Amino acid sequence: MRVELITTGSELLLGQIVNTNSAYMAAKLNNMGFDVLYQTTVGDNYDRMRDVIKNALLRSDIIITTGGLGPTQGDITKYVCAEITGHQMIKHQQSLEQMNIHFVKRNIPMTDNNMRQILVPESSYVLMNHNGIAPGIVQEYNNKYIINLPGPPREMKDMFERELRPFLQNKFGFSQVIQSQVLNTFDIGESLLETKIKDLILAQKNPTLALLVRPSGVIIRVTAKGNDFSDTEKIIEPVKQEIYRRIGEYIYAENDENMETVTGNMLKQKKLTIACAESCTGGLLTSRLTDIQGSSDYVMGSVVSYSNKVKMEQLQVPQEVLQIKGAVSEETAEFMAQGVRKNLHTDIGVGITGIAGPDGGTDDKPVGLVYIAVAGQGKTTVSRNLFSGKRHEIKYRATQKALNMIRLYLTQNMS
Amino acid sequence: MRVELITTGSELLLGQIVNTNSAYMAAKLNNMGFDVLYQTTVGDNYDRMRDVIKNALLRSDIIITTGGLGPTQGDITKYVCAEITGHQMIKHQQSLEQMNIHFVKRNIPMTDNNMRQILVPESSYVLMNHNGIAPGIVQEYNNKYIINLPGPPREMKDMFERELRPFLQNKFGFSQVIQSQVLNTFDIGESLLETKIKDLILAQKNPTLALLVRPSGVIIRVTAKGNDFSDTEKIIEPVKQEIYRRIGEYIYAENDENMETVTGNMLKQKKLTIACAESCTGGLLTSRLTDIQGSSDYVMGSVVSYSNKVKMEQLQVPQEVLQIKGAVSEETAEFMAQGVRKNLHTDIGVGITGIAGPDGGTDDKPVGLVYIAVAGQGKTTVSRNLFSGKRHEIKYRATQKALNMIRLYLTQNMS
Repeated sequence: MRVELITTGSELLLGQIVNTNSAYMAAKLNNMGFDVLYQTTVGDNYDRMRDVIKNALLRSDIIITTGGLGPTQGDITKYVCAEITGHQMIKHQQSLEQMNIHFVKRNIPMTDNNMRQILVPESSYVLMNHNGIAPGIVQEYNNKYIINLPGPPREMKDMFERELRPFLQNKFGFSQVIQSQVLNTFDIGESLLETKIKDLILAQKNPTLALLVRPSGVIIRVTAKGNDFSDTEKIIEPVKQEIYRRIGEYIYAENDENMETVTGNMLKQKKLTIACAESCTGGLLTSRLTDIQGSSDYVMGSVVSYSNKVKMEQLQVPQEVLQIKGAVSEETAEFMAQGVRKNLHTDIGVGITGIAGPDGGTDDKPVGLVYIAVAGQGKTTVSRNLFSGKRHEIKYRATQKALNMIRLYLTQNMS
Repeated sequence: MRVELITTGSELLLGQIVNTNSAYMAAKLNNMGFDVLYQTTVGDNYDRMRDVIKNALLRSDIIITTGGLGPTQGDITKYVCAEITGHQMIKHQQSLEQMNIHFVKRNIPMTDNNMRQILVPESSYVLMNHNGIAPGIVQEYNNKYIINLPGPPREMKDMFERELRPFLQNKFGFSQVIQSQVLNTFDIGESLLETKIKDLILAQKNPTLALLVRPSGVIIRVTAKGNDFSDTEKIIEPVKQEIYRRIGEYIYAENDENMETVTGNMLKQKKLTIACAESCTGGLLTSRLTDIQGSSDYVMGSVVSYSNKVKMEQLQVPQEVLQIKGAVSEETAEFMAQGVRKNLHTDIGVGITGIAGPDGGTDDKPVGLVYIAVAGQGKTTVSRNLFSGKRHEIKYRATQKALNMIRLYLTQNMS
C-alpha cells in the first residue's frame, strides 16, 4: 500500500515550526510494512489543500493528513476532505459527550466554536481523541482511504497508537515488517565506535547498521527486514551479540530506555535511596531522576545550592574549602555529595558543581568545567569533566555523566 | 513568486531524520517576500522524483530541492532535473579544483565516485559549496527556476545565505517582505481566546491572525506583508494594540521570549532573590529558572522535597499538617514556600506539591492535582490546579503556572 502523508498548517510553510509529525508517522508506518512514498505540506488554504489531496489520490492508496481539526476558522482539513468524498457533516455523539465532560471537569465555559471540533463526515469511521477534543476521521473513497489526524504531536501520536494502528492492522494485516533495535552508548565517540565495528557496517545488507549522534551519546541502530518480528529478531540477534562482545562496556541501555530509567531501576532493585546536591545543573539531575514513574521510592529529595551560602548552610561545605579550592573544585563536589547524603539520610549522595556559562569562565576554570561526585558508605568517586556546548547543553551533559557515574557506582560498589 | 520546496531522500520517508531544511528555508524565503506554498518530500526514486518536480512546475514559479547531490548512486536529484530541462552534464571546473584541494589538504585518497559530485547541467548557474564538495545548481526553464541545494543542513544553510540569497535578490529584488510577530499568552484557552478576537481574525487580510496551541500556552501570530520591515511594523502595531486592549492580561511576552526569561528579568530588575521548594516537579522549576544566563544573581537555591521527612526536616512543614491535610494540600504548599524562603534567606519562596502520576491518584486527590504557593514578605498566594497529560507534561505545566504566579506576584506585590 502506497501511503502519502500530508501535513497542513501555515505555520509549517512560514517555517515557524519544524514538521516532526511526518517523521514520527513515517517511521511507524514503515515498521508496519507500508511504503511511505510522499510527504506534502500545504497551508490552511481551501483550494490548494483540495488540489494537494486530489493529487495524492492519483498516486497513493492511503492519505493521512495531520492538522486543521481544531475549533477555529483556520481549521479546514476535514471540510476539504468531506467535499472530496461528497459527505455531509454530522455531530459525533461520543466525542460530544467527551467534550462536555472535559469542560465540566475543568469548569471552563464552552464556547460555540468548540462544536466545530466534534463534526465528522457521515459514514466515516471515527478515531477517538484520548488527549484532546477533536476526533480523527477515516473515510473510504474509491477503494482508497483518506485519514485525518489532529496536529498537536501529543494528540496525534496517541491517536496513531491507540486508534489508527489497530484500524490499519485489522484492514491490511502485515506483509513484510521492518524492525530496528537501538543500542545506546555513552562515553565513546562516533569515530572510535565506527573503527571498532566498521567491518560489520560494511559487510551487512540485512540487518543494516547505522551510527547516529544524539545528545545522550552515540546510538547504534540495527535494522532488519523479515516476514514477521520473530524473523527480524533472529536476523538482528547475532549482530547485536557481536557488537556487545566488542564494545559492550559502553552500552548502557537498548531502544527507548534512557539513562534515568536504567539508573532508577538499579536503585529500586537494590532498595537504595538517593539525594542530589546540584549547583550548575540547577535541579536538572533531580528532575530527570523524577521523570520516572515510581521514583518517589528512591529519590528522597535534593538541594540546589546555587549560592555559596546555601552550600555552606544546607550542605556544610566548609568555608575554607570554598575559599581555598573554590566553589568549582573536586573538594566542593565531594563535600556536596557527602553533605546531602548525610542531611537527607540516603544511601547515595551526588554532588555537581561547575560553570555552565556563557559567563564566569577563567583560564584556570573555563566554561564547561564540571566536577561530579558520587558518595556512598565509605567511598566517594569524583570526575573532572570539560563539556562543550551552550548553557543548556552543558547542563544536560553534566546530568548524563552524573547518571552514568551513579550507574557504575551501583554496579561496582553496591552489588 | 510561488515557491515549492522539495526535500529528497529515503531517510526522510523512513522517518529516520526530521526534516529541518524545509522550516529553515521557508522562514528565510518568507522574510524575503516569497510565498512558500508547498513543501514536498520524495525518496531517491527516479520516476517518482521526476513526477514530483514536473507537478511542482505546474503550480510554482521557483522550485528548490535539497539533497541528492552527493557521490553515491542514490544521489540522483540533478540528473532528474537535467532530464527535465534537456541539458547534458559537464564538469564544473571551479568545483573540480576546489575538490582536488580538499582531498590533498586532508591527505585522503579521492575515489572515482567523487567526480559525480562536480558535474552540473550545461548552461546552469552554479552555487559554490563553501562547506563541502557538491555545488548547487540553478536552471532556468520556461520562465521558471529549478534550484538544487545539498542536503546536509550545514552545507545547505551556508549556500543559501552566501550564494542563493544574493542570486535571488539580484534576480527578483525585494518586492515584498513578510513579518510575523508573536504574542505569548498563558491561562486562557484557544476557544475563549478566539471568541474574544474572532472579529479581528475574520476581518483582517493584512495582517493575518492565527492562534496556535503550544505546551507553554496559546500563541497569537500576527503576520503582515509590506514593502519593507518598517512598513510591516506599521501594519502590525495597531492590531497588536487592539489585542493587548482586549486580552492584555493574558500576554506575558512577545516573540521568542519565554516565561523563565520574563520572570528572571523582573527578579533581576527588582533586585530580588528566589528559592523554590519542589515536590512533584522534582527540580524542574529551578532548572528552568537557571536555564537563563546570569540567573545566579537571583536564584539562591532550592530544596527538592520528595519525601515527607525532607519536607519536615529541610522545610519545617509541621507533621500535623502532613498528617491532617496531607502532603498534597494548600497548607503544605504554603509551608514549603515559607520554609524555603526562610531557610535560604530569599525575598521570594515558591512551594509546589502535587501528584504527577500515573500512580498515586485518588478520587479526592486525582493525578494532575498540584498546589502552588508563592510567599514574600507578609503575603502568600496559593493556587489549586488540575493539569492533564503525562507525568512530564504535568511537571512542565506546573512549572509554567508557577513561573506565571511569580511574575504576577512581583507585579502586584513587589512594585
